[in-house]
This record gives sequence, C-alpha cells and structure tokens, in this order.
Amino acid sequence: MKKRPLFGSLVTVALDAAQREPLYQQLYEQLRGAIVSGRLSGGTRLPASRVLAQELKLSRNTVTAAYDLLSNEGYILTRVGDGAYIANILPEDRLLPRQPVRPDNPPAMASHPSLSARGKLLTELSVSTGPVQPVPFVEGLPAFDAFPLHAWARLMVQGWRRVQPDMLGYANPAGYEPLRELISQHLKATRLLQCAGQDVIMTSGSQQSLDLLARVLLDHGDAVWVEEPGYVGTHSALIAAGARLVPVPVDDQGLMVSAGEKLEPRPRLIFITPSRQYPLGVTMSMERRKALLTFAEKSGAWIVEDDYDSEFRYHGTPLPAVQSLDRTGRVIYLGTFSKSLLPSFRLGFLVVPDSLARAFGNAKSVIDRHPPLLEQMTLQAFMQSGQFAAHIRRMRQVYEERQQILIREIEHRLGGFLRVAPAESGMHLVAELPEGVDDVSFCQTAKACGVSVQPLSGYYTAEPRRNGLVLGFAAIPPKSIVKGVERLAAAVYAPRAKAAASATCSEEGRMPV
Amino acid sequence: MKKRPLFGSLVTVALDAAQREPLYQQLYEQLRGAIVSGRLSGGTRLPASRVLAQELKLSRNTVTAAYDLLSNEGYILTRVGDGAYIANILPEDRLLPRQPVRPDNPPAMASHPSLSARGKLLTELSVSTGPVQPVPFVEGLPAFDAFPLHAWARLMVQGWRRVQPDMLGYANPAGYEPLRELISQHLKATRLLQCAGQDVIMTSGSQQSLDLLARVLLDHGDAVWVEEPGYVGTHSALIAAGARLVPVPVDDQGLMVSAGEKLEPRPRLIFITPSRQYPLGVTMSMERRKALLTFAEKSGAWIVEDDYDSEFRYHGTPLPAVQSLDRTGRVIYLGTFSKSLLPSFRLGFLVVPDSLARAFGNAKSVIDRHPPLLEQMTLQAFMQSGQFAAHIRRMRQVYEERQQILIREIEHRLGGFLRVAPAESGMHLVAELPEGVDDVSFCQTAKACGVSVQPLSGYYTAEPRRNGLVLGFAAIPPKSIVKGVERLAAAVYAPRAKAAASATCSEEGRMPV
Repeated sequence: MKKRPLFGSLVTVALDAAQREPLYQQLYEQLRGAIVSGRLSGGTRLPASRVLAQELKLSRNTVTAAYDLLSNEGYILTRVGDGAYIANILPEDRLLPRQPVRPDNPPAMASHPSLSARGKLLTELSVSTGPVQPVPFVEGLPAFDAFPLHAWARLMVQGWRRVQPDMLGYANPAGYEPLRELISQHLKATRLLQCAGQDVIMTSGSQQSLDLLARVLLDHGDAVWVEEPGYVGTHSALIAAGARLVPVPVDDQGLMVSAGEKLEPRPRLIFITPSRQYPLGVTMSMERRKALLTFAEKSGAWIVEDDYDSEFRYHGTPLPAVQSLDRTGRVIYLGTFSKSLLPSFRLGFLVVPDSLARAFGNAKSVIDRHPPLLEQMTLQAFMQSGQFAAHIRRMRQVYEERQQILIREIEHRLGGFLRVAPAESGMHLVAELPEGVDDVSFCQTAKACGVSVQPLSGYYTAEPRRNGLVLGFAAIPPKSIVKGVERLAAAVYAPRAKAAASATCSEEGRMPV
Repeated sequence: MKKRPLFGSLVTVALDAAQREPLYQQLYEQLRGAIVSGRLSGGTRLPASRVLAQELKLSRNTVTAAYDLLSNEGYILTRVGDGAYIANILPEDRLLPRQPVRPDNPPAMASHPSLSARGKLLTELSVSTGPVQPVPFVEGLPAFDAFPLHAWARLMVQGWRRVQPDMLGYANPAGYEPLRELISQHLKATRLLQCAGQDVIMTSGSQQSLDLLARVLLDHGDAVWVEEPGYVGTHSALIAAGARLVPVPVDDQGLMVSAGEKLEPRPRLIFITPSRQYPLGVTMSMERRKALLTFAEKSGAWIVEDDYDSEFRYHGTPLPAVQSLDRTGRVIYLGTFSKSLLPSFRLGFLVVPDSLARAFGNAKSVIDRHPPLLEQMTLQAFMQSGQFAAHIRRMRQVYEERQQILIREIEHRLGGFLRVAPAESGMHLVAELPEGVDDVSFCQTAKACGVSVQPLSGYYTAEPRRNGLVLGFAAIPPKSIVKGVERLAAAVYAPRAKAAASATCSEEGRMPV
C-alpha cells in the first residue's frame, strides 16, 4: 500500500496493488474525489505523468491511463505539449448550469486581468483538441481516400480564373448566392424542404451554425432539450450560450416527446437528429415527428433539425425532413459538407425561416463578416456539374461495403464479445459490450492496443449511461478495418493479463491507415 | 405645403418646397422624429419608396435620399429586395447600452417564437450588407487590380498536391502550425512583438477576432473604451457582447488617456489602433503608449491593439507595437490579411498572451472548430517564398502613388473646397469640408453623382461629431481616381441647383473601376 501526499499535501493518494481494482482506476478515483470535493481547485496544473509516476513509484502508463480517464470525462483539460489542468467547469457543473461561472478565478500564470465569466465557460469547453487522424475506428470522418482531389483542384483553378475583381472584396454575409440557390434546390428535391436560396445561410460548418443559432435564439438560462445520448459539439455550443441542457431520452422511435414534457414543459429550443439519431442511429418515426411539432407549437419552442449525414442512406427513401412538415416557421435546419465532402473545407449551412433570413445574415456579418469565396465557388461548380451527386452515390456504396466488412470481421473474431446490428445508413456503428464491461476502461485498453474506439457512455450528459462502443468505419479502408478488428480482439484478451492492460499492447503503437 | 397622414395616421408628414431645407431632408427629419419618439416602433415596415413618393407626390429620388439617410444612421434597416424596417435598436440605444433589449418584441411576419434578447441585438447590428465594389472612393479595400492572382493560384495548386489524407479532416482550432510560426517570425521582425507561433490564433478575419475576444474577455455590461471616432465593425462586435461603449476622444498623439480616465476610470477593455488611428490616421505617440500601459495596469484593463494596416507605411520605421512594450500580458494584438492580401480569403489572427493560447484555442474550437486548410497553406507558401514581403513592398509604392494622385486631383479641382493633408501611410485620407457643409448630405449628393465617399461623422458613436470625408484610394486605379474627383467636383456644384441635388446627377449612374 503506497500512501503519498501530493500537491503540497492537499491530497493524499493511497494505492494498493493487491486490490481487485487496477492501480490506474484507483488513482483516477482518488484524484476525481479530490477534484469534485474542491481540494484540488480549477486551474491547478497537474504534475507531468513522468513526474507523478516517479513520485508514486508507478509505471508511467498507469498514470497516463488515470489522466486519460479524467480527461475523457472532462475533469482535466490537456493539450499536447502543455500539460494538464483541473477544469474550472466540472462535468457535474455542465448539466443544467443555472448560474454563470464565478468570475473570481483568475488563471494563476500571469498578471493580466481575468477572463470574463462567459469567457471562462467558453475557454474550458472544447470540441476537438487537434488533428483527428483517420485511424480505425475514429468516428465522424468521411473517406479521405475516396475523395476526388484532382477533380476538385481542377474546379478550384477554373473558378479562380472566373473571379472578377468585385468578388475579391467583402461579400454577402449569408454566402455565395449561386451556391445557396443550388443547395436550396438540392434540399427541396431530396429532403422536401420548404426553402429558397435566400433562406440558406452559409457557415463554416455545423459548429458555427450551432454557435450562431444559439446566440440568435437563446438567452442565458434558457432550457434546451437535447437528445440523450448526443453530440458533444452541440452541448458545447449550447452551454457556451448559457443554455440549461435538459437531456431527453431516445427510444426506437427517436426523441421521447412525452418524457421531455415531464422533464421540462417549456423548453425554448429542441435539438434533434431525426434522420439518424446521433450516435444511436435511430430514425425518428413519422408519428413522433408530428407529436414533436405539435408539442413545439403548444409550448412555443424552436426546433433545430441537424441532418448531419442524411445523404448516406444506402437504399430506399428517407422520411421527409421535420422542416418540411412545419407550418409555423419554427424549424431551423442544419446541414454540413464535412461529412459529404471533407471537414477541411469548413462548409456548412443553416436553412432558416424566410422571415429570419435577413436577421441571420446580419448576425453572421457581426460574427465573421462572410464566408471565404473560393471553397464556395468550387462547391457550386462541383454541384452544378453533377459531381456532387455522383460522389454521394459512390460514397453510399463505399460506406455500405465498409460497414459490411466491419460487421463480418467483428462477427468472425469478436462474435461472442461484441454485438452489432447492421444499419441502413451512416458512417458509424454502435456495438454492445457484455454485461459488466466498462466501456471507458475498454476504450483505454483498445487505445493502448493501437485502435481508437469511443465509449458510448461518453455521449451522455448524465446518468444513467448505456455502455457500448461507437465504431466509425467510413474513413477506414477495408484492409485497415480488418487489422483494426484484429487489434480490437487483442484488446479484448488483454485485460486477462494481470498487469495493467496498457502494458500488453503499447509497444505496437498506433496503426496508420 | 403638403401634409399627409402615414402609417395608419400614426405619423403626419408636412413638407414645404419653399423652405431652405431640401425636401428629402425635411422628410428624413420628420420620419426620424417619429422613430425616436416611438410613434413608429421597431419592426414596422416602411412603404416602398415608389409608394411613399406617390402618396406624398414627391419624386422617388427624394424619398430614396431620405431613406438612405435613415439607413446610414441606423434608424432603418434595409436589404435589397426586402424593403426597409424601423430598427429595434436605435443609434441612441447603441451608445452605453446598459440594458438588454426587451425580449417581448416578436417579428410580425411569422408564428414562430421570438428571438432572444441577445439575438435581437446581434441581428439588428450589421457590418456590411452585401458586396462592396472597388468604386471610387470606397474605403477599406486593397488594390484588387494589383494582386498576383496567378502566382497565388499556382501556390494553391501546389499546396493541394502536397495535402496528406490526415490534413483533410478536423485540425488544430488555432490554425495551421507552419503558418502561425511564420506569422510570429514576421511580427517579431517587423513589429517587435513578443510571441511564439503557438500564441498566434488564426481567425477568419478581424471581425471574428473581435467577436472571439469580446466573448472571452467581456461580460454583459462591462465598460469598454473605444476611440472616438472609430470602426463600426468593432462597435458591433462589442455591442453584440453586451459591452457598454465609452467613446474616448483622440488628439494628435492618439487616444487621450486622461480624458478616458475621467469618463470611465475602470474600463474592462481598451480598444486602440495605435499604428494609424482609424479613421483619422494619427499615430499614437510613444509617450501616450506608455501612459496607456501604466493606466491599464493600474485599472486592471485589457488592451486590444488593432494593427489593421501597419504594413502600409510608405517610408521610415513604424513605432514598435504596444504589445512589444507590455510586461504584464494584457495586450491582445489583432492582425488581418484582408488589407495586405484580399478580404475574400477571410484570414486574420490574434496574438494572445502565452498563458491564454490554450484558452483561445478552446474557444475557437467551440465557435467554429478550426479555420479552413487551403487558404492557410497557400498563405504559408506565399510568405515562405518571399512573395508576401514583395507584395507588401509593391503595394506601398502603389498606395503612395495613388494617394499622391488623389491629393493632386483634389487640389487641382477642389482646392478651394476640400482640404487634404498627405499621410505617410495607409489606404485612405480624411478631407476637411468647408464650415457649414453637412458631410452626410454631401455624401448623398456625391452618391447620386456616381462617387462613393464616407461621411466622417458616421464613424462617431456620439456628439460632437467632426464633419469631413473619408476617401479610400488604395483600391482605385489612377484613371478612376481622376474620374472620381471629377464627379466629386460635380457633386460640389450640384447643391447650387435648387431642386433635390440627387436629380442632377443620378442619370450618370455608378462608375465602374
């Protein structure tokens, strides 16, 4: 039993290798306790894992695993090359935040003034901390290897040749008109949307769309229904706007409207992913769509419909968008080209009710004036020439094939351990873990074995959380899917070794695609 | 004398062609009175100019001129194809806004819920309502005709060929590292900045930089010193963040620190343009820079240093940046490539104190995840190859030449009317008007004569306002400068005709470059 005072004796850590719980789990729990109780306060810098490992006479992997758990759950904030800090906003605070953060908590390292309360909230949230590589089974990325880079470059250069001097200056804050017109036509044809080109507001992707609409529609303290589980980027944008998140459960018909009504009968806004619930993959039934619209009308709520990957239904016809059923102009529709094209273009859009187009354009001009021209021109040409529709069709085949390979390999190597059901669309799958296997710990082990899987419980904002794995396949070429499942199988057997699981696999490192 | 009830008899307009004041001025003043007194409330739609002209038996030009004045001053909001509305936030409200806007003012045209109070503020502000063409003497645009479009396209295609799959996904929220490193080196060499690459946060231009820093540093109701006169885009971003603007006068040494201290001794933030005050063109003296830093330390204020066109000093060495003198990490430095390259690229940056780099990166990830890759890569190559420095050198010559031509032409044709002094840097000039000539009316007349000049009084947030003209020359080729001054001369003589000045010139239309 090792017992050591840490952080100037503020915290005592007592670890026991004889216990059933692995050392990293013990360390994680004791640090978490110190953070939640306030003994370790927000902004405190954690010692480097090497230093703490020496001090506690542990392997560095053990410390790293404990830090990773704390980081995954939001208790500490890390960035490569800059150490780790205790978060000022703990996961406990993020749920239903009724109060602004105390503004009297200056960062310790400089004599400059402190950030604003709003700024503290904003700067401690974070959506992605750096480049996301397309390693198996990272989620949320399209197939980089199948993108027509050359065709895109050709259109880009042709577009640049067409540029007139008057296009090089400041432009319409809502975006390039010919592109907005094409997008509206595409949405009218494929999603039955009620819109015109002028209702399409171009943004730099869904994150900006979410930030923009949260600021335009919400005041501090407003209640927002979010699907539980859901997307952390949505949660971040809403929390940054001071929203009070009300997690509403999802069943096999989508968001449970009646459950939401009991939790919070007067939401100001309702956020849904009806085409394919993120991350569970459920399609919201027509009956539920109508019930939601009726409730929203009655309660006076906005609806935000995020249609992030509706393009990738492999067969058949999707249900019409909720926006197409709305008769009251209360649905804001979100689309992105990060999935259908590439994230690096930073292109997404909002479709807003006609009467709000001017207001959203103005707001966009205040937040960053207007979107850049070149990507918009290139995308317009890509759509106009039919290459966009062709790319989508091709990607549907590619993604269906990759999903089939992933399911086949899992059934072959991990059939007794993971349960996956085929989905009729999308870019990721959710796998069930056996009873009693903790998804966060399992993902740690898998990471040490060179494969990235996401714990389903991490998509929840509160208890109860379902255990499971989220496996992205869209970005992963078939060969890498096969290798990835091999490594996942290694991770399944790793915990049976008595030592810290991470030690078993870590030499193999991370696998490139 | 025409006297007509309007807007369902809410307002009575009485116009008299026999008065000294032109009819459009009378109409403007009576409408403005009705708006300020609240007889015409926010959100009311104005009749189309054609309709009102018929009703009042006026020429349509007269009505348009009155609407333009109201629009320029912010009493009404217009957009092409969508009519005009009374603003909910009047110019009077924008100054020192201590209260959030009343949230009980739903837009009249739909049954959807109302916007948030914050959203109303945001959507009624606006930075630019559409494309800005490089016509004489539009201000704030670089020389499109001198930009090396082909060289840029070549680098763009080369960059695209270098792209690796892992660059196509989500990236560092603070921007492309090699570019940030080059920018920091450039700033250390040219502006003596204290920074490293990691302190440079790439944004989509100054408007996003302002919006980002306002949210990170300010809470609702915080006092902010702004230079008087100043930049409307800055005011919009600050007001959208709920800041209370404190306009501080500027003399020939820059911002008057002692005057500011009397107006508001505890500002949370101080916004300055020390290299070249916008729009007056004054350089802040070294003494004043030091006094400002001392005051900021004493009062605990942040300083935001906007160095928007410091590149365009034609000769000599500029004073070092205020950031280079700061020992307390309280200066945020703003730079943009909208002036040194082109606005359509949407590239700008913040340099933040080292201890805040992580915080700003997180905030950037929440507001729009990260900047697009291609423009950043191309700019990095443009800087690395020396083409950026060469372009800046070339532009200094071009701008100095254009300024000389503008001054020469003004002295030649308008010497008795406009007084301009040569500036040693920059992209625009401020001209003095004779005593008693109203700059807003003059700019209306000039517009009707086919030339765009900006009234200096429009850059002020409050009385007293200096009368004058802001004349951009950087974007205007020499021939067009000559023609533009000819038209300006026509505008000077136009008011002598008794009829509405606009009628005299309007047939000539707007001049292309």
